[in-house]
Amino acid sequence: MTEFNKRILELESLAPDLYGKDFLLTWENSLDNLKAVMLVAEMLQMLHKEKKPWRIFDYGLAISIFRDNSTRTRFSFASAVNGLGLGLSELDEVKSQIAHGETVRETANMISFLTEVIGIRDDMYPGEGHTYMKEVAEAVNEGHANGLLAQRPTLVNLQSDLDHPTQSMSDLLKLKDYFGGWDALKGKKIAMSWAYSPSYGKPLSVPQGVINLMTRFGMDVVLAHPEGYELVPQTLDSAKAFATKSGGSFTHVHDMAEAFKDADVVYPKSWAPMAVMQKRTELLKQGDKQGLKDIELHCLEENKRHIDWECTEAMMQLTRNGNALYEHCLPADISDVSCPRGEVAKSVFERYRLHTYQEAGFKPFVIAAMIFNSKVQDVAGKLKYLGSPVPY
Amino acid sequence: MTEFNKRILELESLAPDLYGKDFLLTWENSLDNLKAVMLVAEMLQMLHKEKKPWRIFDYGLAISIFRDNSTRTRFSFASAVNGLGLGLSELDEVKSQIAHGETVRETANMISFLTEVIGIRDDMYPGEGHTYMKEVAEAVNEGHANGLLAQRPTLVNLQSDLDHPTQSMSDLLKLKDYFGGWDALKGKKIAMSWAYSPSYGKPLSVPQGVINLMTRFGMDVVLAHPEGYELVPQTLDSAKAFATKSGGSFTHVHDMAEAFKDADVVYPKSWAPMAVMQKRTELLKQGDKQGLKDIELHCLEENKRHIDWECTEAMMQLTRNGNALYEHCLPADISDVSCPRGEVAKSVFERYRLHTYQEAGFKPFVIAAMIFNSKVQDVAGKLKYLGSPVPY
Amino acid sequence: MTEFNKRILELESLAPDLYGKDFLLTWENSLDNLKAVMLVAEMLQMLHKEKKPWRIFDYGLAISIFRDNSTRTRFSFASAVNGLGLGLSELDEVKSQIAHGETVRETANMISFLTEVIGIRDDMYPGEGHTYMKEVAEAVNEGHANGLLAQRPTLVNLQSDLDHPTQSMSDLLKLKDYFGGWDALKGKKIAMSWAYSPSYGKPLSVPQGVINLMTRFGMDVVLAHPEGYELVPQTLDSAKAFATKSGGSFTHVHDMAEAFKDADVVYPKSWAPMAVMQKRTELLKQGDKQGLKDIELHCLEENKRHIDWECTEAMMQLTRNGNALYEHCLPADISDVSCPRGEVAKSVFERYRLHTYQEAGFKPFVIAAMIFNSKVQDVAGKLKYLGSPVPY
Repeated sequence: MTEFNKRILELESLAPDLYGKDFLLTWENSLDNLKAVMLVAEMLQMLHKEKKPWRIFDYGLAISIFRDNSTRTRFSFASAVNGLGLGLSELDEVKSQIAHGETVRETANMISFLTEVIGIRDDMYPGEGHTYMKEVAEAVNEGHANGLLAQRPTLVNLQSDLDHPTQSMSDLLKLKDYFGGWDALKGKKIAMSWAYSPSYGKPLSVPQGVINLMTRFGMDVVLAHPEGYELVPQTLDSAKAFATKSGGSFTHVHDMAEAFKDADVVYPKSWAPMAVMQKRTELLKQGDKQGLKDIELHCLEENKRHIDWECTEAMMQLTRNGNALYEHCLPADISDVSCPRGEVAKSVFERYRLHTYQEAGFKPFVIAAMIFNSKVQDVAGKLKYLGSPVPY
Repeated sequence: MTEFNKRILELESLAPDLYGKDFLLTWENSLDNLKAVMLVAEMLQMLHKEKKPWRIFDYGLAISIFRDNSTRTRFSFASAVNGLGLGLSELDEVKSQIAHGETVRETANMISFLTEVIGIRDDMYPGEGHTYMKEVAEAVNEGHANGLLAQRPTLVNLQSDLDHPTQSMSDLLKLKDYFGGWDALKGKKIAMSWAYSPSYGKPLSVPQGVINLMTRFGMDVVLAHPEGYELVPQTLDSAKAFATKSGGSFTHVHDMAEAFKDADVVYPKSWAPMAVMQKRTELLKQGDKQGLKDIELHCLEENKRHIDWECTEAMMQLTRNGNALYEHCLPADISDVSCPRGEVAKSVFERYRLHTYQEAGFKPFVIAAMIFNSKVQDVAGKLKYLGSPVPY
Repeated sequence: MTEFNKRILELESLAPDLYGKDFLLTWENSLDNLKAVMLVAEMLQMLHKEKKPWRIFDYGLAISIFRDNSTRTRFSFASAVNGLGLGLSELDEVKSQIAHGETVRETANMISFLTEVIGIRDDMYPGEGHTYMKEVAEAVNEGHANGLLAQRPTLVNLQSDLDHPTQSMSDLLKLKDYFGGWDALKGKKIAMSWAYSPSYGKPLSVPQGVINLMTRFGMDVVLAHPEGYELVPQTLDSAKAFATKSGGSFTHVHDMAEAFKDADVVYPKSWAPMAVMQKRTELLKQGDKQGLKDIELHCLEENKRHIDWECTEAMMQLTRNGNALYEHCLPADISDVSCPRGEVAKSVFERYRLHTYQEAGFKPFVIAAMIFNSKVQDVAGKLKYLGSPVPY
């Protein structure tokens, strides 16, 4: 049986509940939902490699709202919606604006009369991004319920203050491919570790997303960071619960070496402490520019105290057989390449560089799969049709 | 008979002259032209609701030129041209630039080699926007006549200094839907009234467009504004003539309450006095930044003298049975929501909010209908085909 | 036989080597390659005029990277990829940024997972633009070779520091059309001359591209400029070699009148001296803003010493029968129109204006033809199919 057909069979064995739904947080979704998205992503990638079209829309818009800079996710979204048959329009907003209430409610409807998908990145301010996405969702619910929108646009979280599901599922698909299936992930140790960076204010959604997704697949997840670089507390609670349920484990340490010890996978990445991010949100709302400058300087100074949190060759030697898989959402801060000292040594990054490209390469298909599952009623049937010798 | 087929029949009873034509001003168009655009808009919306594609182009570009900010119209245009099968490209210009002559002539042709539609918003400077659109039209006429452009792009006015036809026709389609047909509009009173706003420099095209369109359908149109907030004089003359011809009426008062008295529809909206807008054009041409600041301050002060021109609940009580329909092109300046005091009271706006969304929802289809009528020779035949059970 | 079928036959008589290749420099390509691109461009234009679609992609992205401002080329690229069936996404970069190494390698792959074409304009800094394009090419080579990119995006040079092939081939197609075929070009004299402009820093790629392309078709090419306004030396060497091989000639003078004498075609256009451009690259790398200002002032002063290098009526009288064809890549600096004194007299430009529009009108099809030849294995067969009475 082909790899494609195996996935059709597995998909048909699941009971996902994705039709008509948004995709905002992995932890709101059942394991079957997550598997369905990832299986469809793999199948869409297979169709693409075989040059078989997977268009499902005759026309319609996909709208992206980027409240933070992005290149990878922007082009992943552009690619996904193009493949599905939609036109792309970007809603430009003043980057630092935190809009709520009437403006959000109205704008969400005004841009949606022919819109099938809205992708949103809003990851800069704790307590804001996910809240904003829920507001948009409620607004288009109202518009659709009242017959003002003929179709209800599907929301896709392209990174919020809480989760980065298109990234974490791409990370997981890489692990699935690398180790050889869902079952092979059970008992594998992954070190999600803070790492030093000379930059400031990186969002928390990647580590939060990783610890909450990998724990659901039976992995032994270790979160490591210096004292003070806390994540949103609930995300640790949920990760622990997921680990218990899946037969994996979740450990929280403050030592990079301890996390790397015997790890099968390492994910060293910088982020800003939640408390700093929250303070920043307040200062921004108050328009306190001096305060914002001060906090940045303070934070960069604090980072420097942990400059040894770097994924060096010595650190890699601690991992299982010295050759754990290195993962990263890119771009990484590479020592002696993008900065004097950063998250990862040049030689380590170079050795795993093409692996990180492959990891990133799943993202367009994960985004497309979220939309596909939300818009197509008979997902397996449609994929069988698209995968047949002459689909068009 | 279905609503769709009724409109086909009505369309076939008209003698529009829209094929190959631009759509710049409603008052240049026959009543049959206006009805044809609005009927086609309704039918395209019906096709959309039934998920029947209405693509008419195999390929080609639609280009938008926005010389003023826009969200609603931008996405309406993007939606319309996507549904028709065109790719969208935006021509960015320096916002405050007033280009004429050689540059316009050349650029219009340079961007049009595969272009089917050019949509333009240029509403900031009296005497400029419409003139600019005519220049573009003449330029592509020359290019097409000389065989340099294989197809002659259709121009669509997305708001000029004179008219905002895609808005006014959306406003009218809402009235047609609300009251139940063209005939039901006869004798209905609409108050197009200035309203206070803490902002400055809003264009005149909405009130000018409304008084010149609603008068053609037999409505009793009352224009109200404080002394000094004059519109372009010819637009009042033409509104009066249209009213005479249609059996409606056109009245011009300087009292909001008088306009609202027994009104069936109210359209309270801020605009800047024409004289201020003209002065601004001069100052801009002279590059007089201090002058531009001074005029803004002066204008905001002057606005404050009319802070009682607000669509309050008390004002609404004056209308027919106290429940006139509230219309607005959005976004409205809502008291206690977007500003301390604005065009409309919070409770009034909230009561009519979904009505204003529906009003806005016609716009993508009005734009599409303008293009459809300009590009398709047998409009009714094509629509019958698209509306048939299996169009593709 | 139709003009279309004649070109099919000619195309079938050639042995081009364009499948799977980038198009960066005309002088890297065989004469058959150049002819194949231009023949396909003409045929695609014919299909367009007959309203026959020439779509070759079911889906996929075309990405443009503009490191210099552009209107004409931007819309030509947008038009070309739209006609071929691709969606367009633009990669915005900080304009003055000169990125290399890891960033280029990674970004090139990150944007390419579903990308069929990458068009790049990078013409501002000698030694940089072409180098950058080669880096992008190597990066996607690696990604494709390692299975990370299912398809290898084709690179199209939309103007580099060395060549501007989409422009020079449009210029040549205009000459072919004007004089009546490839053979008619042999022995025709073209004056590629510097001309005065009150602006600064125009790239060298147009004159370099023209002298290296027209010499391959047997033309007598004369390059003229004031002392000091040197081009990249190798481009003169190659032009000389091409002329020898084709039976044409290449002459280098420092007198506009001498160049115009008995010319069949004149191409008067400003550019900055190579030495100045190189100095500018250095200053930019050093971040020396004062130095950059100084060099601009100095350069504008130097330009003024050659204000008589203008394509006047008197100058045109020197050409063959006083009516050489005037070519320009647009926009031209027109005396008394866009500036007090510029590259060309108002009356001369106006007389040839529509010719320059036609010249520009080939560009979308030249770009499309580069992509077509790179992506389609049986080019002639596909075109026969598209040109047949009912292709779809």
